[in-house]
Amino acid sequence: MGKKMKDWLKFSLAFWHTMRGDGSDPFGSPTKSWPWEEGASSLDPVTMAKRRLRVFFEIVKKLGVEYWCFHDRDISPEGSSLQESNAMMDEIVQYAKVEQEKAGARVLWGTAQLFKHPRYAQGGATSPNATVFAHAAAQVTKTMEATKYLGGDGYVFWGGREGYSTLLNTDLKLELDNLARFMKMAVHYAKSIGFTGQLLLEPKPQEPTKHQYDYDVSTTSAFLLRYGLQDDFKINVECNHATLSGHSCQHELQMASIYGMLGSLDANSGDPQTGWDTDQFLTDPKEATLVAAVILKQGGLAGGVNFDAKLRRESTDPLDLFYGHIGGIDGLARGLRNAARMIEEGVMDGMVEERYSSWRETELGKEIVEEKVGFKELAAAAVVAGGEEKEEEGVKSGREELFEMWLNRYVV
Amino acid sequence: MGKKMKDWLKFSLAFWHTMRGDGSDPFGSPTKSWPWEEGASSLDPVTMAKRRLRVFFEIVKKLGVEYWCFHDRDISPEGSSLQESNAMMDEIVQYAKVEQEKAGARVLWGTAQLFKHPRYAQGGATSPNATVFAHAAAQVTKTMEATKYLGGDGYVFWGGREGYSTLLNTDLKLELDNLARFMKMAVHYAKSIGFTGQLLLEPKPQEPTKHQYDYDVSTTSAFLLRYGLQDDFKINVECNHATLSGHSCQHELQMASIYGMLGSLDANSGDPQTGWDTDQFLTDPKEATLVAAVILKQGGLAGGVNFDAKLRRESTDPLDLFYGHIGGIDGLARGLRNAARMIEEGVMDGMVEERYSSWRETELGKEIVEEKVGFKELAAAAVVAGGEEKEEEGVKSGREELFEMWLNRYVV
Amino acid sequence: MGKKMKDWLKFSLAFWHTMRGDGSDPFGSPTKSWPWEEGASSLDPVTMAKRRLRVFFEIVKKLGVEYWCFHDRDISPEGSSLQESNAMMDEIVQYAKVEQEKAGARVLWGTAQLFKHPRYAQGGATSPNATVFAHAAAQVTKTMEATKYLGGDGYVFWGGREGYSTLLNTDLKLELDNLARFMKMAVHYAKSIGFTGQLLLEPKPQEPTKHQYDYDVSTTSAFLLRYGLQDDFKINVECNHATLSGHSCQHELQMASIYGMLGSLDANSGDPQTGWDTDQFLTDPKEATLVAAVILKQGGLAGGVNFDAKLRRESTDPLDLFYGHIGGIDGLARGLRNAARMIEEGVMDGMVEERYSSWRETELGKEIVEEKVGFKELAAAAVVAGGEEKEEEGVKSGREELFEMWLNRYVV
Amino acid sequence: MGKKMKDWLKFSLAFWHTMRGDGSDPFGSPTKSWPWEEGASSLDPVTMAKRRLRVFFEIVKKLGVEYWCFHDRDISPEGSSLQESNAMMDEIVQYAKVEQEKAGARVLWGTAQLFKHPRYAQGGATSPNATVFAHAAAQVTKTMEATKYLGGDGYVFWGGREGYSTLLNTDLKLELDNLARFMKMAVHYAKSIGFTGQLLLEPKPQEPTKHQYDYDVSTTSAFLLRYGLQDDFKINVECNHATLSGHSCQHELQMASIYGMLGSLDANSGDPQTGWDTDQFLTDPKEATLVAAVILKQGGLAGGVNFDAKLRRESTDPLDLFYGHIGGIDGLARGLRNAARMIEEGVMDGMVEERYSSWRETELGKEIVEEKVGFKELAAAAVVAGGEEKEEEGVKSGREELFEMWLNRYVV
Repeated sequence: MGKKMKDWLKFSLAFWHTMRGDGSDPFGSPTKSWPWEEGASSLDPVTMAKRRLRVFFEIVKKLGVEYWCFHDRDISPEGSSLQESNAMMDEIVQYAKVEQEKAGARVLWGTAQLFKHPRYAQGGATSPNATVFAHAAAQVTKTMEATKYLGGDGYVFWGGREGYSTLLNTDLKLELDNLARFMKMAVHYAKSIGFTGQLLLEPKPQEPTKHQYDYDVSTTSAFLLRYGLQDDFKINVECNHATLSGHSCQHELQMASIYGMLGSLDANSGDPQTGWDTDQFLTDPKEATLVAAVILKQGGLAGGVNFDAKLRRESTDPLDLFYGHIGGIDGLARGLRNAARMIEEGVMDGMVEERYSSWRETELGKEIVEEKVGFKELAAAAVVAGGEEKEEEGVKSGREELFEMWLNRYVV
Repeated sequence: MGKKMKDWLKFSLAFWHTMRGDGSDPFGSPTKSWPWEEGASSLDPVTMAKRRLRVFFEIVKKLGVEYWCFHDRDISPEGSSLQESNAMMDEIVQYAKVEQEKAGARVLWGTAQLFKHPRYAQGGATSPNATVFAHAAAQVTKTMEATKYLGGDGYVFWGGREGYSTLLNTDLKLELDNLARFMKMAVHYAKSIGFTGQLLLEPKPQEPTKHQYDYDVSTTSAFLLRYGLQDDFKINVECNHATLSGHSCQHELQMASIYGMLGSLDANSGDPQTGWDTDQFLTDPKEATLVAAVILKQGGLAGGVNFDAKLRRESTDPLDLFYGHIGGIDGLARGLRNAARMIEEGVMDGMVEERYSSWRETELGKEIVEEKVGFKELAAAAVVAGGEEKEEEGVKSGREELFEMWLNRYVV
Repeated sequence: MGKKMKDWLKFSLAFWHTMRGDGSDPFGSPTKSWPWEEGASSLDPVTMAKRRLRVFFEIVKKLGVEYWCFHDRDISPEGSSLQESNAMMDEIVQYAKVEQEKAGARVLWGTAQLFKHPRYAQGGATSPNATVFAHAAAQVTKTMEATKYLGGDGYVFWGGREGYSTLLNTDLKLELDNLARFMKMAVHYAKSIGFTGQLLLEPKPQEPTKHQYDYDVSTTSAFLLRYGLQDDFKINVECNHATLSGHSCQHELQMASIYGMLGSLDANSGDPQTGWDTDQFLTDPKEATLVAAVILKQGGLAGGVNFDAKLRRESTDPLDLFYGHIGGIDGLARGLRNAARMIEEGVMDGMVEERYSSWRETELGKEIVEEKVGFKELAAAAVVAGGEEKEEEGVKSGREELFEMWLNRYVV
Repeated sequence: MGKKMKDWLKFSLAFWHTMRGDGSDPFGSPTKSWPWEEGASSLDPVTMAKRRLRVFFEIVKKLGVEYWCFHDRDISPEGSSLQESNAMMDEIVQYAKVEQEKAGARVLWGTAQLFKHPRYAQGGATSPNATVFAHAAAQVTKTMEATKYLGGDGYVFWGGREGYSTLLNTDLKLELDNLARFMKMAVHYAKSIGFTGQLLLEPKPQEPTKHQYDYDVSTTSAFLLRYGLQDDFKINVECNHATLSGHSCQHELQMASIYGMLGSLDANSGDPQTGWDTDQFLTDPKEATLVAAVILKQGGLAGGVNFDAKLRRESTDPLDLFYGHIGGIDGLARGLRNAARMIEEGVMDGMVEERYSSWRETELGKEIVEEKVGFKELAAAAVVAGGEEKEEEGVKSGREELFEMWLNRYVV
């Protein structure tokens, strides 16, 4: 459909899952003992950080992927003071730039890790404590600069701690206002340093918090609209977050897309029977086809397709890193081909068009869409219709089963 | 707290559950054989409708409740044409006016039933068919007039069919645009007839549809904001819908309240283990206290407290209608008393205030709230703080367990 | 794999969804106006029942399906007395026998409808009322005879009302004991009339009740084992019920299969985002492959594959009945082909075998499996292993990502 | 009701949550910096373990609690070999015995931690690797001895890793058979060392695995019955696990209780809106009343009431450990008092008895319960009943709303 696959799907490797995923879970210790981590505890953290970057870009290159994403504290360690953290970050980011160039890659987006350190336990931008807000601001400042330096296309905010554990101790209004203040400052700061990448919010309903303020695409839209930020941010949809919020991934993508808010995709998948984020690779053929179709229909993503996906805890061989990502790449590549055929053949789109034809083809439909009539005129029209021919107002079969059959034609 | 209980909680009986709930479910036939329904099938529907109104207001009066809510097609039958339906509606509404006055009651809000008739199977305002949109408009027109005539404080839109069964056959953008067109027309029509009651949207995530466009408070807010309707509508929160959307009822109420969108409450409760709307009476002491606290804190509801709650299918004795409503009234009355004590003692509010004190008491906090500083200044401040005294940025315990203990002091 | 597809998958049409599904839901009236239902209300119910059977077997024949399933009250009406109901049933069942023979079909299984009539609102076999228990017994008696007469391979019990709405009013032990008594009587009755078909229980976690006693395969097994009924019943697994109970359909099938309890399959699918039974046709390629693999591995089903699936409420054209069933047949046929390739190639099975090789190949493994050692010996062995070579006890990568890749090779 | 509160509710402190809960979660580092942990990293682990025991028993004593529970690896560290681990365990358990006596406490139950170490990532008793099974056996051996030494009333198995991550790589039958082998060995070993405490299984549906074999009470019962272990084990019900498995805690307790399987209780509570184990203190007044009622009705627990509950991550003050436990103790004490009143007044029990009166008072009911009649007789009886008086078979109202009202009378 006029572009190469790699332009439709700008694949990106997530540094955190690839390099820092250690297989631990709430009931278990790390399971991965990657060869490149040997001696990590006795090495100085900057040396170790550089080693990880070297290995990471070797993987990036071997997979033929051209983008990557990072958190500040995943590529660069937390020091004993912010100053020290910043100094290490400077050194490491410079090193990353050299390495990414060797691998022929660049940053899709960067983000600051505002959820792991205990200072953020009660929130970053929504902390009850102003000093924490300032610390969060400092981390974003630095990470945005790094993202710019590394040629990043975007900057993502995932508010893992921007939510609450209980409403009983929470000043909801103040927290939401502060979150908006934080985002406004981010917009200003990006402009002030000439960072032209897209700012993005990534919705998630909950986990680690009981409720996160960026619950889903619509909730995030409401927040942006309410605080006048809708033109400054787009949305980074993650499929596993979509399903945790009670929606299909296709739903979240379409909701964002129809209002011009769909900026980027975190391609992963959840387990339909578990109530937490499993971050599995998106490999289901039907899901991948539906996801790719939204991307194709909106003419591609300004951002890209980040594999925010992790190996199962039980997958402990470095080879698994390749199996996982290759499965993910293949899955979406296949989905894209399926979706392209589906769109080019146009049968399903034609069926949709036919379903809504009254809005284009009848006087009544056109007048409503053009907002030329009100309830009074419609009530009058309905009495006429209702008095004459009941069948007139009947709607035709929705044909869901037929749509499913057509979809499966493209999926398999 | 300065008002009578009946002014804080303007209780309302729902005509549909009380009079038209027949105990049927997706796997079962009706179970109620109320004495007043005897002979219903052989009587003419208008006579039957009037009989139901008489019985209803007898119950209203016996319960000492002063408000009621209705759907057009629950109080008045569907005729063989819209004209006939309208004519019957006129007669019945006049009758209702007489009866409600005898009972000393008036309408809290009215609503048109746009979900039961097969013409609405694929949507009312979001139907693929323009004629259906017009029919929906006609019903709202008529019902809004009836609501005005019956002294109604509000008019509610619950979009039971405004959603989709599958995205495969759905033009999402057109449907949402049409929904907004419908709501704009409703606003204009209300003005044109001098209806000054509050217009309200009632969120529900799904059921009967797979996805409803008014998913939850935030999604509904996003819709209103996106289409410039936020000043024309408030929200009618239903507790069972809240929990079905993955939120506590308290959450939905607070989200609506902090932005001035909380207009009215459908007081009911869902079963925590079932994935569909059970519409049970809200009797849980803790839940009732939390719900009442939100109402008290925003100074009451412009709308009221409608018992959108139904008897269990197995409750087949007319007495059960009284047990159910008395349990609901007692539950909220107790909740209100608990909440009043909680607010008047002020301990929990004080603890919240203390938790956020840095936003009022420190220079840094005040400058952020007053939006005098940006990321640059905050980053500098954080370096200083981070370089000196780590503990400074530490946040104090969130004290959730203590908050829970205090809450229980008021609940029991 | 040595059998024809139609022998692996004995497809069956469900009379209830095909002929009696009217498109109503908890918020909506019927939407289907099938041509063969014209004049139904004015015809006598037996004539109407026969007409439906004629149409049904026309559909059966057109689809080339060789089995069907029925509820007593769906093929035959409820009379004003049990005697009358039985008399009508006799006449209709005779008629059905003629019609099924013309269509070249026979009954896969029959079942009595013990959930729709208000007498069963509080349970059939678990009713608080002994007379209801007797009535349920009478219906099963009659339906089992009819099933035998129609050459049925099996008889299914789905306990839609055998559960509770609230524990507060429930004598749990008595209800479960009575359910067991009912099942024992059914076993005896089957023997007494020479019905040699398989008796089956069909698990479902809830809906219409809050909790159903046959929650899932394991719960149903526990019930059968506890009351000594495990040799008399097998299980009819329904995929949508599986997912409602928090399991994948593959899980429920395998749990039943490994203990020799898997008797038959209700092939359908639920919506992953809704909390109620949607009974959609099973068309997902991956799901169908996994389901078919269990069937192939246990050497087929003594029962068959019943399409317990219904058209969406919005699908209102008789053609949709064909689209739905053809989609379902195609889906499973494709799944069977995929699964056969997967099993014949043997790669995945080989990987599983390798994963567990220590149980066949090491002394320690063999001794445990043959139950020759106890904790004392194992503790000693572990000290030796733990003292020498930690790596020895390490387990190899679980390779989930690789398994997923292999699966997708067969699915698409 | 004839016993002291402390005999009805043998409260127990969980060593793991109280002492080893560090506030980390899947997205966050530890948040607690308890004073007694100062210098932990530089101290030798046995010294540190003893210090923790001293602090723990100080808390136990201050709270006036008389029991405690432990995992081997929480009280005693993992060494570089099993031998070393065992040696440290011996020393620490001796120390614990002294300390517990000073505090006037003893062990409610002990358990081996078979889920945290990477060797158990793919299972302990259900590992694909025989060496891991042996290691698990060794840990249970040691821990059972320690439990006996510390006067423990019971020994619990919670199979956190006994389940699967994906069925694709799993030999389900072998894993379940091995799990049964492990449990049989445990029974034999307990006998061989003269440990007379109760062996218990603790159900949990999932987390950390996708599916755990001890899913819920019924699944666990099926497992025990299938492998002939039903007389050797009872069940330790945990409320949060109950709700995660789709049941109320009351349901799980009653299911276990009616079959004589209810041995002990892990008193905690989950968040109704989150899909993972939150292990909050059980403080809800209604829940606590319902839980206590089951305990009272079965005449108490052979085991006790263990606070398997943890502080929120944001609760970082040592005082919170007291707030949490006091809230939990108060909650259940209040629940017990409420339940005692409810049972002593007997109104609700009387209503239940009345509801099922036909089973004791009618001929038909008695004959069914005494298993004197079969389907043939019942069918005949039903024809008579059905032919005469339809109302006869009608069931009376289930009165759920009235039961709820009565319950609330005791709760508040």
